Parts: sequence; C-alpha cells; structure tokens
Amino acid sequence: MKATASAAAPVLPARGRLRPLGLGDVRITGGFWAERQSVNAEASLAHIEHWLEREGWIRNFDLAAGGGDLAADRRGREFSDSEVYKYLEAVAWEIGRSGDERLESRFRAIVARVGAAQEADGYLNTKFGRAGQAARWTDLEWGHEIYCVGHLLHAAVARARTRPGADDGLLEIARRAADNICDTFGPDGIDGVCGHPGIETALVELGRVTEDDRYLAQAALFVDRRGHGRLSDVEYGREYFQDETPVREATVLRGHAVRANYLAAGAVDVAVELKDASLLDAVRTQWTNAVTRRTYVTGGQGSRHQDEAFGGDWMLPPDRAYSETCAGIGSVMLAWRLLLADGDPRYADLIERTLFNVVSTSPAADGRSFFYANTLHRRELGTLPDADRPSLRAAASLRAPWFEVSCCPTNVARTLASLTAYVATADDEGLQLHQYVPGAVRHRRADGRELCVTIETDYPRDGEIRVRVDSDDDQPWALSLRVPGWAGKGATIIVDGQTRPVAPGVVTERRTWRRGDEVVLCLPMAPRFTYPDPRIDAVRGCVAVERGPVVFALESVDVPGVGTVDELRVDTSEPPRLADGRVTVRCHQVRPHDHTWPYRTDPAEARPAAGAELDAVPLVEYHAWANRGPSTMRVWIPTTHEARHPC
Amino acid sequence: MKATASAAAPVLPARGRLRPLGLGDVRITGGFWAERQSVNAEASLAHIEHWLEREGWIRNFDLAAGGGDLAADRRGREFSDSEVYKYLEAVAWEIGRSGDERLESRFRAIVARVGAAQEADGYLNTKFGRAGQAARWTDLEWGHEIYCVGHLLHAAVARARTRPGADDGLLEIARRAADNICDTFGPDGIDGVCGHPGIETALVELGRVTEDDRYLAQAALFVDRRGHGRLSDVEYGREYFQDETPVREATVLRGHAVRANYLAAGAVDVAVELKDASLLDAVRTQWTNAVTRRTYVTGGQGSRHQDEAFGGDWMLPPDRAYSETCAGIGSVMLAWRLLLADGDPRYADLIERTLFNVVSTSPAADGRSFFYANTLHRRELGTLPDADRPSLRAAASLRAPWFEVSCCPTNVARTLASLTAYVATADDEGLQLHQYVPGAVRHRRADGRELCVTIETDYPRDGEIRVRVDSDDDQPWALSLRVPGWAGKGATIIVDGQTRPVAPGVVTERRTWRRGDEVVLCLPMAPRFTYPDPRIDAVRGCVAVERGPVVFALESVDVPGVGTVDELRVDTSEPPRLADGRVTVRCHQVRPHDHTWPYRTDPAEARPAAGAELDAVPLVEYHAWANRGPSTMRVWIPTTHEARHPC
Repeated sequence: MKATASAAAPVLPARGRLRPLGLGDVRITGGFWAERQSVNAEASLAHIEHWLEREGWIRNFDLAAGGGDLAADRRGREFSDSEVYKYLEAVAWEIGRSGDERLESRFRAIVARVGAAQEADGYLNTKFGRAGQAARWTDLEWGHEIYCVGHLLHAAVARARTRPGADDGLLEIARRAADNICDTFGPDGIDGVCGHPGIETALVELGRVTEDDRYLAQAALFVDRRGHGRLSDVEYGREYFQDETPVREATVLRGHAVRANYLAAGAVDVAVELKDASLLDAVRTQWTNAVTRRTYVTGGQGSRHQDEAFGGDWMLPPDRAYSETCAGIGSVMLAWRLLLADGDPRYADLIERTLFNVVSTSPAADGRSFFYANTLHRRELGTLPDADRPSLRAAASLRAPWFEVSCCPTNVARTLASLTAYVATADDEGLQLHQYVPGAVRHRRADGRELCVTIETDYPRDGEIRVRVDSDDDQPWALSLRVPGWAGKGATIIVDGQTRPVAPGVVTERRTWRRGDEVVLCLPMAPRFTYPDPRIDAVRGCVAVERGPVVFALESVDVPGVGTVDELRVDTSEPPRLADGRVTVRCHQVRPHDHTWPYRTDPAEARPAAGAELDAVPLVEYHAWANRGPSTMRVWIPTTHEARHPC
Repeated sequence: MKATASAAAPVLPARGRLRPLGLGDVRITGGFWAERQSVNAEASLAHIEHWLEREGWIRNFDLAAGGGDLAADRRGREFSDSEVYKYLEAVAWEIGRSGDERLESRFRAIVARVGAAQEADGYLNTKFGRAGQAARWTDLEWGHEIYCVGHLLHAAVARARTRPGADDGLLEIARRAADNICDTFGPDGIDGVCGHPGIETALVELGRVTEDDRYLAQAALFVDRRGHGRLSDVEYGREYFQDETPVREATVLRGHAVRANYLAAGAVDVAVELKDASLLDAVRTQWTNAVTRRTYVTGGQGSRHQDEAFGGDWMLPPDRAYSETCAGIGSVMLAWRLLLADGDPRYADLIERTLFNVVSTSPAADGRSFFYANTLHRRELGTLPDADRPSLRAAASLRAPWFEVSCCPTNVARTLASLTAYVATADDEGLQLHQYVPGAVRHRRADGRELCVTIETDYPRDGEIRVRVDSDDDQPWALSLRVPGWAGKGATIIVDGQTRPVAPGVVTERRTWRRGDEVVLCLPMAPRFTYPDPRIDAVRGCVAVERGPVVFALESVDVPGVGTVDELRVDTSEPPRLADGRVTVRCHQVRPHDHTWPYRTDPAEARPAAGAELDAVPLVEYHAWANRGPSTMRVWIPTTHEARHPC
C-alpha cells in the first residue's frame, strides 16, 4: 500500500502490511510516555545542547566554516558531528510534536552554523579534508564520515515532515551532502562502505521525502557492497562492522550491536522499496535468531564490552551485559520496519519491551543524566560519574551527564520526541494499536473517511485499556489491538459488554463503528516470575520478576538491612505480590562461608548458611533503578532452592 | 637467610623463610614436566625463533643498528623487543638446564644483533628515539620502553646465573640499559613509571647479580611512584596499570592481570630486600583477596576481555574467561616470591594449580601453537586460527602458532625452561619439596653438608610420591613435604613403614637421615566433584571435576553422539570414576525447548526435556583440550538437578 507521504513519522515505506501514522495523527496525552516526553522536552534537550556547546562539538562547525584553526582546535571524537545532527533531529520532532516555538530559533541557529561548514561540493564533516586534517574518505573503517551524513539526513527528514517547506535550509544542506555521497560512492565511484552503517536508512528516507530515486539506489548499493571484506580487518574481526558476510547470506545479527541493527533496518528499507523478498527474508531470519538467542530479558542487545557487540548464542551475562542504549534504539528501529512490512505483533512485543526496559532506563528521572550501557547486575557501587565532565561509557552505578562517546543521550532524545509515531498504524481495513498510551488517534484516509479513537488507560500501572470510537462511519472498519506475548493466557477483551479471552497476537474487531462504541482490552497485571532458557548459562538457577512489559530489579537501597543484593535468594513457592503499588517477593538472606579458596570438595562448604527470612522485599522497576543514589542491583535473582541443594 | 648467590634460579632473595635451589641443584628426570620441558626445548624454541625472524622482530634490531630505515620498516607492536628478550631468557635457561650447546651459537648471534642496536648512552629500544620515530619516553602509558628493558634484564640475569662469566656481552648490555633507566628515571630524573610494570623484578634481580644497590633503589622508587596518577587517565581507568592506588594501600589485585601480578612480584622483591614489612604485608593481602575472590578454578586470572583485567569480586564468567597465559605466569612469579618470603604452602598450592591448568594449557601437545587466553567454556568452534599468520588473541577453539601480541609463547618458553627452580627449596633446617616430579635434589649447604634426595613418582597420574634419601649425614635435618590443599583429609605419609594421616599444609620429618631412608607421601587421586562459592554467579548450579591438582573438562570430541557439550548434565549422586586411565562421569542429555522468546512464565517451558542417559562420559584434562581438532568444551558442567527442578 502507498504511504501517506505527508505523515510526520520517521519511516514512511512505499508499501507494506501496515502504514505508519505520524505525529499529526496520534497524540499521547498522559501516563508513562507523556511524562518522559515532557522531561525530554523540558530538561534533556537543553541539557544536551549545553553539553554540545560546552564540549565544542557545535563550535567545530564554526571552525570548519573558517572561524579558526580546525585541525588544531577541533574537539570530540571523529563522530561528534553526528551528535549535533541527532540533536537537530530530536528538536525537529519536538517542534513537530509540541509546536514549541521556543525551540525554533535554537534549531535554526544551529542549522545555520552547520550549513556554513558545508563545502562547495556538498561534503560536510569537521574531522576530515581541511588543511592539517586527514584527507576525505581515507579511513572508512573508523572515520564515520558517511555515518555522520546519515544522521544529518535523518534530521532533515524529520524537519521536512514536521515543517514542510520550512526555509531553514536544512533539507537543502542534506540533499547536497547526500549528493556528495552518491557522487563519491556511486557505481563509478569509490567501491567502499562506511565502518558504521546508518546511511542506508537515511538515504532511503531522504529518497522518500524528495522522491529522488538516486538515494534509494545508493542505499541499495551500500547494502549489497557490505559483507565482502571491503573494510580492512580489525582486532575485533570484520564481523564487528558486518563486513564478513553479505546481508542476504547472514543468518543472525552479530558484531557491534548498534551497527548490526542500523544495517538491518536499512536493509529492510531497501528490500521494501525494491520488492526484494529474499533480502527481507534474510533480515527476518537474522532478527528471529537474534531475539531468540542473543537478547536480554530487558530487550537489551550486546553481551560484550570489548567491542560493544552481540555475543554468541546464549552468551548473556547479566553482570557484563553491555546492552547499549543505542543498540536498544536500533532494535526498535529494526523491529518497527519489520512490523510495517509484515504486521507480525512479535515485532511490536519487542518494541514495547525495549522501550520500557532499555530506552526508558537510560535517562535519569530528571532527564539530565544517562546510562550508556544497561547492565542487569551490579555487585559494587563502581566509580561514580563526575557531574562536571564526560564519563566513561559503562563505568558506574549512576547515570552520567555526558560521555566522551555520547551517542546515547541524543539518540534517546530523538526517539522520545518521535515516540508518538510508534503507537498506531493504519491499513485499508482500519486502525491498529501497537503500544498502549492514554491518547487519541485521528486518521483521515485517502478515501476521505476519518477513523478516530480515544484510548484511556493507566497502562502499564494498570492492565485495562479502554478504546472508544470517536468517529461515525457507515462503512465497517477494523480495529486491531495487540495482545502482548507476555500476557499468556490471561488477556480478555470486552466488546458490547461481553468478555472473552484473547490469545497473544492481534485481536481484530471489524464492524460499522459508531461514536461512543467501546472495546476494552484487559491485560493480566499480576507480577510474575520469569524463567530463563536453560542454555543461558549465566543466569542458571535464577528468576526475574516482571509485571506486564516491565522488568523489575532488586536494588540495595530497598533492603537497607542487607549488605548487598547478592545475599538474597527469592522463594519462588510464593508468587510475587503487588501491595501499595510496589511489587514484593519473599526472600531469604543467606550467609556464604568465606574460604581461602572458593572451590570446595564438600558441597556443604559451598552451601550458604541460612539467614533472615524477609517476607516482602520490594523490587523496583528496572528502568527506575539508580535514581536514589549509588546501589547494587540485580535483575536475575537466585532462588532459595540453591540454599537447600547447591547442586 | 642469605641466598646462595650462585644458584641458577630466576629469583634469589637476600633473605626470606626459604632459599631457592637452582637448575644445578634439582633435576626433573621424567613425567609430566620433563615431557613439557623436552617439547619446549625440541620444538617450541625453534618455532619461536622462526616466528621472531619471520615477523621481523629481531630484524628490527638490525634496522636500529643502522641496517635500514627503522621508522619506515620496523615491524611489530611497540613491545615486540620484549619477545626477543624473553626468547633469549628461555634459551639461557634451556642451556643452563640441558647444556644444549647447539643453542649457544643461536643465543650469541641474537645477543650480538641486540647489542649492536644499543645507543651510546645505553638506551635500547627499536620503537622510539631514532629519526622519524617518536622521541624517547614520550608515551609512558603505552610505549613499553621501560617494560622491554625489564625483560632484557631478566634475560641477562638468566644468562649470568647459568653461564657466569660468559663473554657474550649480554650482562653488559643489560647493565648499560639499566643504568640508562636509572639515569633517566632516578630521584632527579623523570618522575614517571612505565604503563606496564615488569622493570621492578628485573632491577632487583640485576642488583642481586651485580651487587649494585642502585638498581634496587630504582626498583623501590618505581614501586613507590605508582598509584598516584602519574600516568594519564585512559579509557579503562588508571586501575588498568595499577596507578589509581599506591601499592602499599591497595587491598586486592586489580586492573590488567599481567601488570598486576608483575607489579606485586616486584613489590615483594623490594620489600624483602629493604625489610619493608608493611609493603610485604600489603601484597600478602592483595594476593589473598585476589585468590579468594578473583581466581578461576584453574588458577587463571582475568575475567575481562576488554582490558585483559581482573573483574570485580566474584566476576568469573567461564565463557568470557580471559585467564591470559601470561597472567598465570605472573601469578606463579608472585606466589613463588611470597612462598620464599613466608614459606606458606598455600602459595605452592596456587603455583601447582596454575602450572597444571594454565601454563601447561597454553602450548599444544606439539609445542608449536599456543593459547593466549584460556577460556573455561566454549560453546562454538569459533574462527579457527590460520597456521600461516599471526592470530587474534582470544578468538578460537584451537591454539594459534603466533599472535600479533605474542607475549605468551615466549613467556611459556622461559617458564618451562626454568621450571626446575620451582620444585624445591632449602633452609637452615633442611629441604622442602613443593612440587612433585620424578627427579633428584642435591643441595650443598654453606656449611659443607650435602643433602640429597631422589623422588620417584608418576604424579599427577598417581598419588604416590616416594622420597629416598641419597646422602649420609650424622646431623639431623628436616625433610618437608607439601600436602596440597586439594587433598583434604585424604593424604597419608609412610615413614619407617608406619602410615599416618597428614593434613594439608607441610609435613616435616626431622631426623638423622641415612642413605636409603624413605618417606612416602600418598595423595588421594580419586577424581572428585568441585563446588563453587555461591557468590560466583556465572557457574551457579554447576560442578567441576578435578583429580589431584588437575582440572578436567567435557570436550565435544569425546561425546560424538551429542551435538554440543551444553546438552549434558552431570549426575552428582554418583562420584566421577577412573577407568582405563580416563575420568568419566554419569550424564543425562537434555533437550531444551526452542521458543521464539527465551524467557518463560511457565517454568515447565524452561525446563529441558530429558534425553539419553550416558553412563560413562569421558572427560579430558583441561590442559589437554583442543589437541584433537576444533571442539566445544566446558569445565563447569550443570548438574542433573536443574532438569528436575529448574528453579
């Protein structure tokens, strides 16, 4: 089906099972995500701009435009331009979402500084090509030149879709930069790819905005070129940048987790536009295998700190989880494109899980510090971040205000500002709700019919989702609601006062709807234990606790009488309870024996002694941990079983 | 007590509880270690020299001496000089051990090439300081200049003690290089330390050889300077090179595991020479805490690939174990120095464990390929190493012939060639046997008395160690035997035909010994299950199998009917058996259920289905794994218990 070309949404495929709805079609009016969008708008955006200026990453463009000695004075890593572009993208979406005109002048000012740095032939990068700098395109492995252009294009796309025809010049800057990429890396140009994918989605979307097929062709070329060893071998192997196996031959996501997801998302875009069924199928397989074997219970991806990469199958250590925020965002980007292409609710399930447990975990409650990596287990408080300078990426039990590699804050900001676009879709049959927020969907179809619903819910605090039709139509249409996989056999739907059970997947009610008609989806919100696949060695003998789509954690600030969370064992014979708004579990405290050698021949010496019984240990939503000072934390909690029978 | 200054041993402290015996005092005549020393001499040394030449790391010295354009043509990493020095050290010990004169000319030829590169002021490094290169001492963090000199000094010390007075010039080269270090970094020189410790032990030992106190003073200065942030901060933090906390304030080994052990060993050397009790005590505490909480069952150290570093307490993932071979060697170096200082048999216990399960694991059976990292669990075959080019450090399920960072082969070679020095010691009371090998100890005391014993044993294949006195003496003396900690309550000793139990520690028989007198130590060699401390989350619900000091592993080549070792569960209700020379365990094969999401609400869905029962699954000595082609492997095996009760 043809997309609504004018929708204010990040992804507008030419065809696919579902059609995205934009910021003009959907409103989030309260609840969990509205709160985060508000903090993002009120606090995070200014915080990010402050640090971009403070670290000189915007000033780099001024230097490039002739205001100083770029080679000597440029600051930041080779990809710092991209943070400025992601910030612009976030601001564009935020202006589109809220209409906050205070942001408009800030946006235009930065666009002007960026544009002034663009060279005559369209090339735009502050790290390469000028006097005293390395020449253009001399370091495709690590230079990130093409990658940075990708984020510039995404910013321009966001702007073009939220303020069509705006005279700020960003779209023209982007087109010239994209043309420079196509001129340089086209069929007759340099036979190379960027070490960091990202340009592929960007070129396809710019092509959709501009209706210029050249960009799609270039994106397809980049997708096909990768995987043949064009990039030089590096310490981590070519798998690091997915250059060891062609996209259409790979069977699982691997290597650097952000790169892997960005590339796969771009491959979906290309496949959809070009009706390339085998390419799309290859990505489906990669996604399924990655989600089945290489994904944390939070939705997080990336098990290795060394190269920020997926580990092998079943390698999912909680204490060394990398689970980079940006990999979570990349995973949402990929799953969303697959959802639009296929309509399979499993994609929306992963998006929900990842939004609640990775994307929303990164920013602190005040929106002014962030996790770069999202560990599932912290034994020690670690080195606390310095509020006054950039931090290491994965060092602490508290969020940091900024990083030397600061991709995550801007990525979170652009995702939260555009989150409204991930709530609902349309097709020729009607509307589909994928994520549950209090709000409204108002969709004017190409045939002139308008389909409107209002959603009332306190989800995920409560499982009742009340969908009221707000339009009259004398033709039938279909209202589809996702029933999350985690609901198991516990979901019901109420239509016309009749309650019936619904299985995970999609429940569709097709009828001639009248204003005021209601459908109520009731999801089972009792907290529950979750048991890992036995092949995930690192969490053997442990359980997690979930409630709805939200993963919980045991955090030391909630058990002040216990030295460390690692001393607790959860009693699974009693289900987790919900009391006074908090999830609690029954635990036993154990006291391990100290030996001078920690491996014992006598199992009794390896069995911890029983300590206090704790009837109601409160857990915290994983996304909310580390908001109350330094702490130890664990998502996977050993069971009391071990204390009775260690082996 | 004063050391025998002439002993051919790597460490000759001025004082301490025990006095080392050298290659002239001890012989290993057969068995496990003689075989490895033989392979080292016959295969590994030539293999190493071949690769050192092939990779150009010796030729770098020729270039430095004026034979070419060093800046353009130098090959290898910044520390490649040190591999040449470690090779020289290995050859020096091997000549001393075996008297193999064929090695003598090769040794002298390389020494001459090294010496030709030394500059007029004693500076010696092929990476820095010449035309087109970075200036000397401009990169203390990563340059490894001082570290390389350390290995040069160790080579010279080995040579001086095995061929005193040799006219090859190596000792003079070393003295001039050491003088250059003292001139440059002395009290009035550059106030810095090297990013990689190692110079400290070397300077102390050179001081012992030359009786020049200047070197000890410089070593003490380096030990005291470290830990105050003189090195700049790096991505891994200053902990990486132990520069975040002064040596005498630190309470545990941390950071890069090789650096940590080398530094601590140097601190022991300095403390012993200077009678610095508080410094020695600090290292004792660091060692105890590292061994108690940060050491694998193999004795391996280092849980993190990212920075080759110790993890935090209890962070000991088997599948991401780094357990670098060189860290194991560093651990042996440290424990040996503490053993000499204190006499505590726990140090010898760790040496034994590390020698059998780390140092001997690195080389392949043929001595021509090596493990750099020693994982305890491999789920996949991985990328197999290329026999014809250097490999990545930790990439495969097979050993590699050489590495881009090739510290381990040369380190193994020098350790095996000097291993004889770690077998026995003396003190004023008599002789102490620490490691059990078939062989002989012949010790002439300063007072002229000669104490001789012959050891007959097939240890560790058999637990009987027969020590026969081969000297007559009309004065009593004490024969001390270590009873390993792993023996538990199972060890006995037979003296005068009388058998009595002996507890782990040291058993000492003091008497007037006559030629032919015998003491027989009987160690319990039944294979046994080993249970981990419950705080080691990564191996919860698993057991290891050990026999004597040897750790065993389950390797896929031994279970051809099973897809992967990960499908096996061990039944601990039946102890491991020894049959036809192989250790076997009873296992159940399990068949996990495949789900599209690997975390289940229903525990039954997470419980694997029972498969075949395997009555006698053979295990392999961990050190011998990966000698029969690519395989999957695990040391820690989940128990059948999980299959019955997943949580």
